[in-house]
Amino acid sequence: MPTSGPDDLAGLAALDAAGLNAAQVIAMVAKSEGNGCVNDFSRTLAARVWEQSLPPTAITVVSGGTEGVLSPHVTLFANGGEDERLGLRAAVGRTRRLEPSELGRITHVEAVADTVAGILRDLQLDSSSVELVLVKTPLLTSERIAASLTAGSVPVTLDTYESMACSRRAAALGAALALGECTRPQAEETLTRGVGAWSSVASVSAGAELEDCHVLVLAASGDGGRLRARHAVMADALDMAPVAEMLAAMRAEGGELIQLFAKAEADPSGRVRGRRHTMLTDSDIHSTRHARAAVGGLLAGLVGDGCLYVSAGAEAQGPPGGGPVTIVYEVIEQ
Amino acid sequence: MPTSGPDDLAGLAALDAAGLNAAQVIAMVAKSEGNGCVNDFSRTLAARVWEQSLPPTAITVVSGGTEGVLSPHVTLFANGGEDERLGLRAAVGRTRRLEPSELGRITHVEAVADTVAGILRDLQLDSSSVELVLVKTPLLTSERIAASLTAGSVPVTLDTYESMACSRRAAALGAALALGECTRPQAEETLTRGVGAWSSVASVSAGAELEDCHVLVLAASGDGGRLRARHAVMADALDMAPVAEMLAAMRAEGGELIQLFAKAEADPSGRVRGRRHTMLTDSDIHSTRHARAAVGGLLAGLVGDGCLYVSAGAEAQGPPGGGPVTIVYEVIEQ
Amino acid sequence: MPTSGPDDLAGLAALDAAGLNAAQVIAMVAKSEGNGCVNDFSRTLAARVWEQSLPPTAITVVSGGTEGVLSPHVTLFANGGEDERLGLRAAVGRTRRLEPSELGRITHVEAVADTVAGILRDLQLDSSSVELVLVKTPLLTSERIAASLTAGSVPVTLDTYESMACSRRAAALGAALALGECTRPQAEETLTRGVGAWSSVASVSAGAELEDCHVLVLAASGDGGRLRARHAVMADALDMAPVAEMLAAMRAEGGELIQLFAKAEADPSGRVRGRRHTMLTDSDIHSTRHARAAVGGLLAGLVGDGCLYVSAGAEAQGPPGGGPVTIVYEVIEQ
Amino acid sequence: MPTSGPDDLAGLAALDAAGLNAAQVIAMVAKSEGNGCVNDFSRTLAARVWEQSLPPTAITVVSGGTEGVLSPHVTLFANGGEDERLGLRAAVGRTRRLEPSELGRITHVEAVADTVAGILRDLQLDSSSVELVLVKTPLLTSERIAASLTAGSVPVTLDTYESMACSRRAAALGAALALGECTRPQAEETLTRGVGAWSSVASVSAGAELEDCHVLVLAASGDGGRLRARHAVMADALDMAPVAEMLAAMRAEGGELIQLFAKAEADPSGRVRGRRHTMLTDSDIHSTRHARAAVGGLLAGLVGDGCLYVSAGAEAQGPPGGGPVTIVYEVIEQ
Repeated sequence: MPTSGPDDLAGLAALDAAGLNAAQVIAMVAKSEGNGCVNDFSRTLAARVWEQSLPPTAITVVSGGTEGVLSPHVTLFANGGEDERLGLRAAVGRTRRLEPSELGRITHVEAVADTVAGILRDLQLDSSSVELVLVKTPLLTSERIAASLTAGSVPVTLDTYESMACSRRAAALGAALALGECTRPQAEETLTRGVGAWSSVASVSAGAELEDCHVLVLAASGDGGRLRARHAVMADALDMAPVAEMLAAMRAEGGELIQLFAKAEADPSGRVRGRRHTMLTDSDIHSTRHARAAVGGLLAGLVGDGCLYVSAGAEAQGPPGGGPVTIVYEVIEQ
Repeated sequence: MPTSGPDDLAGLAALDAAGLNAAQVIAMVAKSEGNGCVNDFSRTLAARVWEQSLPPTAITVVSGGTEGVLSPHVTLFANGGEDERLGLRAAVGRTRRLEPSELGRITHVEAVADTVAGILRDLQLDSSSVELVLVKTPLLTSERIAASLTAGSVPVTLDTYESMACSRRAAALGAALALGECTRPQAEETLTRGVGAWSSVASVSAGAELEDCHVLVLAASGDGGRLRARHAVMADALDMAPVAEMLAAMRAEGGELIQLFAKAEADPSGRVRGRRHTMLTDSDIHSTRHARAAVGGLLAGLVGDGCLYVSAGAEAQGPPGGGPVTIVYEVIEQ
Repeated sequence: MPTSGPDDLAGLAALDAAGLNAAQVIAMVAKSEGNGCVNDFSRTLAARVWEQSLPPTAITVVSGGTEGVLSPHVTLFANGGEDERLGLRAAVGRTRRLEPSELGRITHVEAVADTVAGILRDLQLDSSSVELVLVKTPLLTSERIAASLTAGSVPVTLDTYESMACSRRAAALGAALALGECTRPQAEETLTRGVGAWSSVASVSAGAELEDCHVLVLAASGDGGRLRARHAVMADALDMAPVAEMLAAMRAEGGELIQLFAKAEADPSGRVRGRRHTMLTDSDIHSTRHARAAVGGLLAGLVGDGCLYVSAGAEAQGPPGGGPVTIVYEVIEQ
Repeated sequence: MPTSGPDDLAGLAALDAAGLNAAQVIAMVAKSEGNGCVNDFSRTLAARVWEQSLPPTAITVVSGGTEGVLSPHVTLFANGGEDERLGLRAAVGRTRRLEPSELGRITHVEAVADTVAGILRDLQLDSSSVELVLVKTPLLTSERIAASLTAGSVPVTLDTYESMACSRRAAALGAALALGECTRPQAEETLTRGVGAWSSVASVSAGAELEDCHVLVLAASGDGGRLRARHAVMADALDMAPVAEMLAAMRAEGGELIQLFAKAEADPSGRVRGRRHTMLTDSDIHSTRHARAAVGGLLAGLVGDGCLYVSAGAEAQGPPGGGPVTIVYEVIEQ
């Protein structure tokens, strides 16, 4: 549902119109129109107004940044009850509150892994059926860094913007660990080296508006329900083929797109297919904003719609420079 | 030819390698890695070093802004002599120096129209064969605005960034007027109303590094030479179909892309296909930067290469929210 | 009271500690840490959480932008009852909701003038005793512009950032008109020409978070109470002398500063004391952000504290390039 | 001498007017109007045009960023010959070219220390007479980082903007080491911890336009010449007193300011005098831009002129959050 601003709750009325109500919502996932970086108060505003309207167990995952043709919107995941014919399984959870000094480190990885594993157990899901692990993870503000230093513990970085990357990497490795996409030593090595293991279904966004991690796991039931999901991995920011193929497969099933969830990033090598990019040397616009705009432009062109969940900063989410893409769609006639 | 920085002249060596020399160059067209706005000194730097290496008659058109996956590069247009079998006709010209008070007004339109018309006459070209009119046009700095006010004449705007839009609009209308795409009264009305007439082949970029307009006209000979060009118009920023078709037609001819020239802009209505975009309410990043990143992401994905000439601010260049796209390609075996 | 974020309500506890309560608050005036431009959601967030805690008659004036050494904070104006010995008189009001097409035009001026005049009448104040007229005024978003155009009325500008300047100018002229600092024809001419009449006590901030204008009038009782105020006008952004003198006079009375309210702007001539500045040609940072940082740095240095209300965009507030400064202070022993 | 743009060489004419010529220039020190960060091509442009006009032994130190009221300008240091009555001693030098992997590390410190020590020896200067050590130092671009990694050596950081801070810190420690302000172990510890030792006269600016370090040492002769210098240290960004006292001392000598050289930075603690600042959590504007604007606003107000050399990023230059300030002035009548 498109929004007219971060505090637009019109989605609640749409929920009613669909015969659902706020009490059934387990997750609110949104793109809001801030800068998607440290000081993005559009995220806080959206999270705050929605949290006042949803059950306390529901999670909010607000990803800032609708650069280029991307359009602010809200996607609500509501519990349809025991009707498994819907075809999609979803559940949410939260980690414990993380200390500033834990952020981006192995205890952060483990906290997310435990939460994801718990959800899989509860839903009796096999990890191979998982199509998306969506995570909202904290970041370090100047205040949190100072508090940590005062308490005698050194945070993973002193740079607030870089803390977003560290936090996303750890949370994504948590998902990868829980899904068997990497081992604990591989996760640790990836934390140290910055690159290494990665998940093909994790999508992590960082924000100052929370101190724990919010986790949504989405899986396909595999028995041909009305709601379906697929995922693919873009190898780099120009890699439209896997997405185009996935959309073609959807259409072959008679499906119509409900939402597309993608991660994007500036290739850390400074090049895309051998061509120099300038996203990492632009001191006026952070690279995550560039990446959202570019990959959002490509995906919106493919889909013909800018109301997509394109999030940037794909550390340990897909290969370096690339990122996972999940589509959720509906097959009306079956 | 990719560049390692705005002052990279490695393209000259590539010219030598191709059996050509700097004296044959009639136009240097580049994307440089500044912000593409008023204070983009990457443009000035590139223009300055290249002007020292090229014949005084050669023009430079440096468009700033390689947001997202776009990659800095230089395209050189060199005179191949009388060999018409090459298939492409190109020539350049300059308007007289424009007064700050003329910028964005009808005398600006006329100056460009006269220059384009002169080139068409010289090349004995019919306007229907024109595939691209590339223009570099001045902008208003604080200094030029103050000078104009001191001299008693009010410039078209007091806002330096907005002066870029006014200047691009006037220059594009000049091309449209010369090519018969609009009448003089239509051009005047478009200046007044902001929207109206537009050219389907004009591509205009503004900069502080010049006070006249630089003009390049590119036309197809139509007799099946080795170098060919086509143009299309994107109706909006998601409109990939016309470009995909043009690329398919190129491939059907056995062609390989040399360069793609595109214009993009944030739809002035605040919406793209009914979805709200936030490019015009983002006070941190100017809308031209957003538009280049998004449309550059789409076109680079289609082509598989970020070394494209994607320029933003498409006033009177294609319909509102859209823009013209020209491809130049080579058919090796015929 | 310093704030830890836009949604920090710790100021309410401080109010309690001072023997006051939220019901006595007539105005909440704050600096929040967004960009202070069109898409500043820190303002909306702060306004929203405070409005839930204050009486419906209380107004909120949240000014975004704490560039440089400025520090986010909240100033609460509470009604001390009939005790005139406090020395300061303050009252608030709101205009009617303004149509997008009225913004920046003479009806906007008149609406503010009527509200200010009404407050002066209610308080039985002479305009010469007024030390500060603080106004929060709306701006034009893409949505409001589109709605206006659809309704057949052309807004004062199509540029969202520029709409902030137009709105501030009209509101400031409203204050000037009510205080007898200009005539209606002078106000109209100033709207047309951009410069002309100005108020020496108005301080106007624009935002997307409201559609009417919020107005606070602050006056000195003149009978030597505990709370006092003074105002001065900076002639340009370097003009520290009038402020230093005002602070010296305060200290001579045994006063301690409670808050300083200042307006600042990039000199529209492009020069400050003959030296070229680059605030109006910087396409990466809007000039209001530059001006707050620079004048905030100067005033915070003078005062020794960054918790000051420095707001930028001083159209019709002080002379071009300068701005009014009001101090509120307390004289403990008298 | 004020400049109208980065490539303005009008200063050469002013040199002639003063009875000097370009061959006598040993250093060109400038503020140019780019963002002062990684992609500041105004620095490259200025350095390039001036290097074509000055002797090959002359150095260029171009510091980007004229935020707020700061004004672009050039200061030329010319050799007045053997006339020691001028009162100021100055000499320049360059380090060897630094490898990307050396940047920000102890060999970088030593290279600068050796160059400074060499200049002191040549001029037979005691370190206590030094009033300013001005250094231009390289930074890491994506290209240099990639080259370093390919060559098997890990650079001090993978973040291009952060590389500026690392490079400034090492160069400043080089000056401190040569002047006896710290020991080699203290320098090493400061590199590791980020804070620790600092110089009270070093002023370092980083840029992509060079691969060695340019060094200027300025000392007072102490025998009361016409040209004089003093230095002070600001303890934080609000600390105007030491500068005001220095200016008062200058005036007491009958001196008139020629130039003021200052370093500024966002206090790494996130606070200035106990008040939270938001320079380190602002993902839209880098903290160096904030710091220049704020401290530039304060110093320009004190001096009454925006043509000051205020540079930001004061790692190991003055205490955390503060920075050294040097003034050069002329005593006409003595």
